[in-house]
Amino acid sequence: MSLPHIPREKRQGLVMVYTGNGKGKTTAALGLALRAVGYDWHILMVQFIKGDWKYGELESYQRLAPNLELKRMGKGFVRILNDDKPFEDHVAAAKAALQYVKDHLNSDYDIIILDEINVAIHEGLVSSEEVLEVVRNRPKYLHMVLTGRYAPQELIDAADLVTEMREVKHPFQQGILAQPGVDY
Amino acid sequence: MSLPHIPREKRQGLVMVYTGNGKGKTTAALGLALRAVGYDWHILMVQFIKGDWKYGELESYQRLAPNLELKRMGKGFVRILNDDKPFEDHVAAAKAALQYVKDHLNSDYDIIILDEINVAIHEGLVSSEEVLEVVRNRPKYLHMVLTGRYAPQELIDAADLVTEMREVKHPFQQGILAQPGVDY
Repeated sequence: MSLPHIPREKRQGLVMVYTGNGKGKTTAALGLALRAVGYDWHILMVQFIKGDWKYGELESYQRLAPNLELKRMGKGFVRILNDDKPFEDHVAAAKAALQYVKDHLNSDYDIIILDEINVAIHEGLVSSEEVLEVVRNRPKYLHMVLTGRYAPQELIDAADLVTEMREVKHPFQQGILAQPGVDY
Repeated sequence: MSLPHIPREKRQGLVMVYTGNGKGKTTAALGLALRAVGYDWHILMVQFIKGDWKYGELESYQRLAPNLELKRMGKGFVRILNDDKPFEDHVAAAKAALQYVKDHLNSDYDIIILDEINVAIHEGLVSSEEVLEVVRNRPKYLHMVLTGRYAPQELIDAADLVTEMREVKHPFQQGILAQPGVDY
């Protein structure tokens, strides 16, 4: 069964920020998407940083929720382990990802998730001003979710909801490796 | 397509706690469930507090993810607005919910989510010792997620992962009402 239809003119699109150094930011955004597809909403999730989702996660999500579209546009992690890509490639990928969001502001999507956008800003791939411009130009019904640690103050100021996921304890601290089904 | 099968004997079941006063705790648990159903895992989510999920959210989730089983066992919010139920009813519901988890520790489920269990402990519906006993008696492959503000120190000590969702900003502060598709 489907949940009741909520016309777009009755919606107040929120800007939601999940930031902080703890786990659960992207996962919370995915949970939000799962909740929203129950309303037959269309969700776009654009990844700004993590270029390499493990295994067939993407396909798997889309099998579960055909209304959830995932775009992997980031070129992987910047300036860390095994990053052998020129910085300009990361910049170009982030800018293309933001352009893609811009091009789809007025479309079928009811929620757009900018995954790891805060990190992209922090790394200097896009500016917070460029991101804020996109956020401000969204149609009134459109919810936007911005994830990633290091959310800049300007984004926090512009947001309706901000949650900081604070790491209290992490399995890696106890020498536990990343677990399939849980971490990816 | 499905993700590769991970035999149970290769898994290290984690105890994950999402706590804090910010939004995103249950949502992150749901996101984790969404990720795990991609592996064809079976997930049980037992709600200890919120008895009244709005609309057909339950049906909707299960349509999306048939391997995700949601059990609403809590009797609604304790000691707040409109709670006209005797305290013993809340206690009985929470104890029954914990018993249900106990009875399903060794079963088809690969992840068990105890939603709002921390609040149930905080309200005195079940003791942290009772909960810890269940957690400790889980089979080695079983991941458990415990959500809710006020996670007691004993649970934090026993957990592998703890994230505190800290409220930085909430839409209600700006007079924005709860939004369907986002809040419920």
